[in-house]
Amino acid sequence: MEHRRVKDQESFDRRSLSSNTATSSLSTAGGPKGKDSWKLKSIVTLALTLLTSSQAILIVWSKRAGKYEYSITTANFSVEALKCLLSLVALYRTWNSQGVTEDNRLTTSFDEVRVYPIPAMLYLVKNLLQYYIFAYVDAPAYQILKNLNIISTGVLYRIILKKKLSEIQWAAFILLCAGCTTAQLSPSSDHVLQTPIQGLVMAIVMALLSGFAGVYTEVIIKKHPSRNINAQNFWLYIFGMLFNLVAICVQDFDAVMNKGFFHGYSFITVLMILNHALSGIAVSMVMKYADNIVKVYSTSVAMLLTAIVSVFLFGFHLSLAFLLGSTVVSVSVYLHSVGKLQQQK
Amino acid sequence: MEHRRVKDQESFDRRSLSSNTATSSLSTAGGPKGKDSWKLKSIVTLALTLLTSSQAILIVWSKRAGKYEYSITTANFSVEALKCLLSLVALYRTWNSQGVTEDNRLTTSFDEVRVYPIPAMLYLVKNLLQYYIFAYVDAPAYQILKNLNIISTGVLYRIILKKKLSEIQWAAFILLCAGCTTAQLSPSSDHVLQTPIQGLVMAIVMALLSGFAGVYTEVIIKKHPSRNINAQNFWLYIFGMLFNLVAICVQDFDAVMNKGFFHGYSFITVLMILNHALSGIAVSMVMKYADNIVKVYSTSVAMLLTAIVSVFLFGFHLSLAFLLGSTVVSVSVYLHSVGKLQQQK
Repeated sequence: MEHRRVKDQESFDRRSLSSNTATSSLSTAGGPKGKDSWKLKSIVTLALTLLTSSQAILIVWSKRAGKYEYSITTANFSVEALKCLLSLVALYRTWNSQGVTEDNRLTTSFDEVRVYPIPAMLYLVKNLLQYYIFAYVDAPAYQILKNLNIISTGVLYRIILKKKLSEIQWAAFILLCAGCTTAQLSPSSDHVLQTPIQGLVMAIVMALLSGFAGVYTEVIIKKHPSRNINAQNFWLYIFGMLFNLVAICVQDFDAVMNKGFFHGYSFITVLMILNHALSGIAVSMVMKYADNIVKVYSTSVAMLLTAIVSVFLFGFHLSLAFLLGSTVVSVSVYLHSVGKLQQQK
Repeated sequence: MEHRRVKDQESFDRRSLSSNTATSSLSTAGGPKGKDSWKLKSIVTLALTLLTSSQAILIVWSKRAGKYEYSITTANFSVEALKCLLSLVALYRTWNSQGVTEDNRLTTSFDEVRVYPIPAMLYLVKNLLQYYIFAYVDAPAYQILKNLNIISTGVLYRIILKKKLSEIQWAAFILLCAGCTTAQLSPSSDHVLQTPIQGLVMAIVMALLSGFAGVYTEVIIKKHPSRNINAQNFWLYIFGMLFNLVAICVQDFDAVMNKGFFHGYSFITVLMILNHALSGIAVSMVMKYADNIVKVYSTSVAMLLTAIVSVFLFGFHLSLAFLLGSTVVSVSVYLHSVGKLQQQK
């Protein structure tokens, strides 16, 4: 039962990330340049970091409350629907101020929309795989293997977006992965070394799928720079809702039919849905004003912030491994910025 | 009893490091420049790394054999005496080929010799402190705290030798410390976080004493560039022997008087003494052709090599923490060389 709970929570966590990357943004297309752009980039990165860390804290809080009576698939659907709604509100405001133009209209062409289901589909495959990987890997080991996402995102970012990272930035990326993993070390982490080859292959495939979905979303958003991002996101979220609807039918059809769509929703469930939707918006802003690399750094730092806040909120003890991992992650963030400055010279 | 053994072994380990830094070298003063210097630097660094890692393996081997019946103070004295002998042999060969000159003569002035006892004295104070720190810190926590040496050496190297490290090299140095500590993490490592303030202060003082002794030895060796290093080392070792003689009198006078100086020496004891003497020579060569920073990197990499070799020799299991720490140390070594190249530009 406990294991099932972990899987479910994991699943919610993952799928909401999926919806995160099927990005939304309240900003207008193009956006400001130069100093203002840098300022905006910093603000959205900070917002993503804070929202992601409060996400994890909400999860811990909900675990302590011990309430998982709602269906995770309906919660995921609600997140997608809320983001869709927020995109529409933002679009409506744009129409009111600027009028309906070629760039911000809701109607779309097949040529534009045909790539939109791809990220959602990639996440669906990844989430299906997730149910099988637990046959080979236990939950703490899976937490460790998830850090492969960092490396896969970096590699796919380089290959697909053809953007070069300097040698120091690559070193920083390896350190980010090692640091995050170190910070999560627990006495049972060594299990991961006994992972059978099937589990390892599945973890790598999952990391590639998730990295590819993230980078591909950036490709979609940046493909038409003048196109209003809320219109783009509206279509991304429509497919997100569609895929989550399929998941509801496959997994929770009977439960929803018998008990109702919102059965078991508590105050904290609503808070989590709100948080996930806002995080999704923050991710999309980071994708628009920055890139996947900044997103990875932002969510990694959020993981550390979560642990530190948990010390005060829940009386967690910080391990030496956590302190060492945090040190390595901090140095990694520093080196990434040094590498960036050197690139610009 | 086991604890006493750990302390004793620790003590032997430490004191032999002390004798290492009271350096010896078989090379002639000055030495080659340019490409040859780089080649020599690589060879002596490799030699130090291999000798240090085999040192630790010999310690593990001697632990398995369970033989600690010899007196550690006499073993330390023997190491000093052997290095003194090797310095004399090297000097004798130099006299035969080049004749006795101002630079390679054995006689010395008070002005030259007055600083020579300082490193040996610093180590004596450090070794005395070591007996008290175990009142506050257990053995695994002490292993962790020993990594403070890395930071103290870097800081004192910067202050005393006034050599600048680039920002990337400082980042690499912090990573080296974090990586080494991560690689040594064990389930009981978290004890270190409960270290009382007295233990922590003592650990920092010990790290500063050991760092200062290392850097000061480099100062002594590099102060008179034309002076033959074997003549310098001869005097350093004379004081090393003197201080170890005091230690024998204080700690093991009765045992030596009743059982004899070499009581309990086994084949492995002789091997360890030989290894420590050769390591001492390697350290001195690194001090001569490189510096304390290279020495710290060399001994850190040796620590990782030891663990890997132990997997094959003693069937040790590598932990995930070790693999992560090794990754961080490897990136640190890479960054140090990148930082060096950038400094030279």
